[in-house]
Amino acid sequence: MKSFIEYSSSSDFPIENLPYGVFTSHKNEQKHIGVAIGDWILDLNIISHLFSGPLLKDKQHVFKEQTLNSFMGLTKDHWTEARVTLQQLLDVSNPILQNDAALRQRAFVKQTESRMHVPADIGDYTDFYSSIHHATNVGIMFRSKENALMPNWKHLPVGYHGRCSSIVISGTPITRPQGQTLPVEGAEPHFGPCRLMDFELEMACFVGGPPTALGERVTAKQANDHIFGFVLMNDWSARDIQKWEYVPLGPFTSKNLGTTISPWIVTVEALRPFLIDNFPQEPQPFPYLKHDDKFNFDIKLEVDLISDKSPVVSTICRSNYRFLYWTVKQQLAQQTVTGCNLRPGDLLGSGTISGDTSDSYGSMLELSWKGTKPLRLKNGEERKFLQDGDTVVLRGYCVDESGLRIGFGKCEGKLSPAVPME
Amino acid sequence: MKSFIEYSSSSDFPIENLPYGVFTSHKNEQKHIGVAIGDWILDLNIISHLFSGPLLKDKQHVFKEQTLNSFMGLTKDHWTEARVTLQQLLDVSNPILQNDAALRQRAFVKQTESRMHVPADIGDYTDFYSSIHHATNVGIMFRSKENALMPNWKHLPVGYHGRCSSIVISGTPITRPQGQTLPVEGAEPHFGPCRLMDFELEMACFVGGPPTALGERVTAKQANDHIFGFVLMNDWSARDIQKWEYVPLGPFTSKNLGTTISPWIVTVEALRPFLIDNFPQEPQPFPYLKHDDKFNFDIKLEVDLISDKSPVVSTICRSNYRFLYWTVKQQLAQQTVTGCNLRPGDLLGSGTISGDTSDSYGSMLELSWKGTKPLRLKNGEERKFLQDGDTVVLRGYCVDESGLRIGFGKCEGKLSPAVPME
Ligand SMILES: [Ca+2]
Ligand SMILES: [Ca+2]
Ligand SMILES: [Mg+2]
Ligand SMILES: [Mg+2]
Ligand code: NI
Repeated sequence: MKSFIEYSSSSDFPIENLPYGVFTSHKNEQKHIGVAIGDWILDLNIISHLFSGPLLKDKQHVFKEQTLNSFMGLTKDHWTEARVTLQQLLDVSNPILQNDAALRQRAFVKQTESRMHVPADIGDYTDFYSSIHHATNVGIMFRSKENALMPNWKHLPVGYHGRCSSIVISGTPITRPQGQTLPVEGAEPHFGPCRLMDFELEMACFVGGPPTALGERVTAKQANDHIFGFVLMNDWSARDIQKWEYVPLGPFTSKNLGTTISPWIVTVEALRPFLIDNFPQEPQPFPYLKHDDKFNFDIKLEVDLISDKSPVVSTICRSNYRFLYWTVKQQLAQQTVTGCNLRPGDLLGSGTISGDTSDSYGSMLELSWKGTKPLRLKNGEERKFLQDGDTVVLRGYCVDESGLRIGFGKCEGKLSPAVPME
Repeated sequence: MKSFIEYSSSSDFPIENLPYGVFTSHKNEQKHIGVAIGDWILDLNIISHLFSGPLLKDKQHVFKEQTLNSFMGLTKDHWTEARVTLQQLLDVSNPILQNDAALRQRAFVKQTESRMHVPADIGDYTDFYSSIHHATNVGIMFRSKENALMPNWKHLPVGYHGRCSSIVISGTPITRPQGQTLPVEGAEPHFGPCRLMDFELEMACFVGGPPTALGERVTAKQANDHIFGFVLMNDWSARDIQKWEYVPLGPFTSKNLGTTISPWIVTVEALRPFLIDNFPQEPQPFPYLKHDDKFNFDIKLEVDLISDKSPVVSTICRSNYRFLYWTVKQQLAQQTVTGCNLRPGDLLGSGTISGDTSDSYGSMLELSWKGTKPLRLKNGEERKFLQDGDTVVLRGYCVDESGLRIGFGKCEGKLSPAVPME
C-alpha cells in the first residue's frame, strides 16, 4: 500500500494505520472528525460524501459529528468499510481526492496547525489492574512477597470505576493536588500538597458497537464486536492521598485529578499484524472469561521524563502491552458479567503496564521502589516521585521486520505546582 | 400559597414543592421537562415563553431541552427565579395559565398518563458512605466492634466512583446478577447467581451550576452554588460478589448491575423549611470540609418490600436523611479537593442511610444482620436477602406541624430471576 501523501518511514501514521481523532484548526473552530496520515489530518467532515459503500452511504452523518460516538456506535463491518474506503481514497493510484485540488486543499490540515480534543463523550470509564508484574510489585511493597497478589487477582480482571469529567487530552497541564494524607501511621492526618505524585503508563480501549441493554452480558467470546480501538493513557496518581483514602471502597480523589489520553484512536484492524499469544493463564478462567483467539498485542511502550531545569529527555521506562495478564476481551466480559450495559465511547483502562525488569516498570512508585531507589535522570537530577515542572510523555508503537510501523503518537502532560488554599 | 390545581393534603407535590423531572406522554413521545403538582405534570416545554423574568427571558431554551442539564447548568439565582415564576403561574389568584383554556389543556398532563425518564445526562456518579450507623454496622459485621470505623472515616467523606450507564428510573426491572463469589474462605471461587442480593436506601444529589475547571476546588463553604436538588436512590448490591471482588480497588460489578433513582428532583429551596442541625462532628474536619450553616434535612425515609406471592406491603425500614454524618456540601468539597471538575448533572449518592435502631437500617445486610436474624414479612414469609419477584419501594417525605408535606414520590424496582448462561 502506498499513499499519495508522503511521510517518512518513521512516521507513526502510515496508510496502514489511519487512527481516528477529533480536531479543530486555524481554519475551523468547530470540532471535526479526522484520521491521521503522516504529518497531516484528513478531515472526514469535509469528505463524508465519499463514504459511498453499501453500509456507510446512509450513515455519512456520523462523520459530520463533533465526537466519534455515533461512528463507534455502528458495527465492526461499518468500521471495516470506512477503513477500506479511506485506504482507497488515500492510495497513490486513486485520483478522486489526489487530483481534486480544491477538495484536497480543504480536506487536509497540518497536524501542527490543529488542536486535538477528547475524541468521544466518555459515558463511563473503568480502570483495570491487569498487569501481573505491576500488581505483584505493588503487593510486595505494601504487603509481602508471599501475599503479593490478592486471592481474586488470577480469577477475574480486577477493576474499578473512574471519573470521566477529568479525562483530558494530551498536552493539558495537570496540577499537583492538595489533599489528606497520613504521614505517620496511627497519628493524625495532614492536609497539604501531594508529596508522592506519580504517573501510570496505561493503554485504554474505546468501546464500540450499538449500546447493550441493562441485564445483558457480553462474554469474552462476544467481545470482538465491542472493541473499537486503543489510545495511550496516563492515570496520574497521588500515592500518599490514595493510601489514606482508599480503604475500604477504593481510590477516589487520588485518581480523579486528571487522566490524560493520547488523541489518536488506533483501531483493532490496524493492530492486527501485531497480534501475539495471550499471556498464559493458570488457573483457567471461568467460561465467561474464556476466548480462544489471540488478543494480545506487541506494542512497545516508553515513558520520557523531562525536567523543567533542562530540555534533556530521560527515557525512564520501556515496557510493552504484551505484559498484560488479562486481555481487553476479558476485561469487557468482566465489566458486563453482572448485566452492566455498555455505551459506545466507554473507556477501559488497562491498568499500569509493567514488565518483568526494573527498567520496564510503569510508575515512579515501582521505578524508585517506593522512593528507596531514586532514579538518575540524564541531566544528573534525581527523582523518587514527580516534581513540579516535570513533563511526562508516554509513547507507543508497533514495528515488524518489514519496517511497518503503527504508532500511537504521544500522551503528554506537565505537572504544575499546587494551588494554595484561599 | 394556594394553587388553582387541586390536590389532597397528603400529596407529595404541593405548590411548595414543584420538583423537576423529564417525561413522555400519550400525547407526546418527545421528552419534555416538567414539574409535578398534585397528580399532574406541568409541561415546561409548552410554557417556556412564560419564563419572562430578567434572568430567564433569554434562557427559555433550557426548558425546551430533553434533559435538565442546561437548566441545572445555570445559577442558583436562575433556579430561584424559575421557582418564583412557577409558583406565581400556579397561584389561584393568577389568571395567565388558569384562564387560558387552550394553553392549560396543552400544558397539563396527568402523571398516570405519562412515563418518567432519567432526568439528566449523568456525566459522573459518585457513591458516598456517609451514614455513621451504616458504616459502623458493616464494620462490626466484617471486622469487630473496636475497629468498626476505618481510621479515615471521621476525617473525610469516604466515597468511590460509580457506573453511570446503569442508572435507571423508578420502575425499571432489575435482574439478579450472575458473578463470582467465594462461598468458602480459602477454597476456589464459584460462578453463579448472586445469593445475597440487597438494596441500599440512599438519597442522591444532582450537581448544578456552571461546570468547574480541572484543578479548581469547591470548598464546603462554596458548595451551595452547586447543589441543585435531591432524589431517592436504591443502590442495588450483590453482597457475595462484592465481598470477593472488592479487594483492593473497591466494589465494581457488584454495584453496576443497576442503580434506581426516583424521577422527581426536589430542590434545595423546597426542602429549606426542613433544615435541621448538622450531625455533630468530632474531630473537627479540615477547613476545606467546614461550613457553618445547617445543611442537614429532616426527611423521613421508608422502605417497603412486596413479595410476588401476595400483595401485602411490609414496611421493613424507617430511617431519616438526618442520620448522615457528612453533609452533601462536605461530600462536594471532598469530590473536588484534588481538583476534580464538576459538570451539571453529576450525581452524588449519600451512601446507605441507616438510623440507630434495628428497624431503621437501610439494607437487608443490616436488617437481617448478615442473614442471622431473618425478617418476618407481613404475609408471613421470611427474608434474609431479596428473593426473585420481590419489589422494593423507597419513599421519602418531609412534614411539619402546619401539615406542609414535601415528598419525593417513590423509587421502585422489582427483582427478576437470573438469566441463565447460554
Ligand atoms: Ca490505573
Ligand atoms: Ca451505596
Ligand atoms: Mg485518573
Ligand atoms: Mg449501583
Ligand atoms: Ni461517567
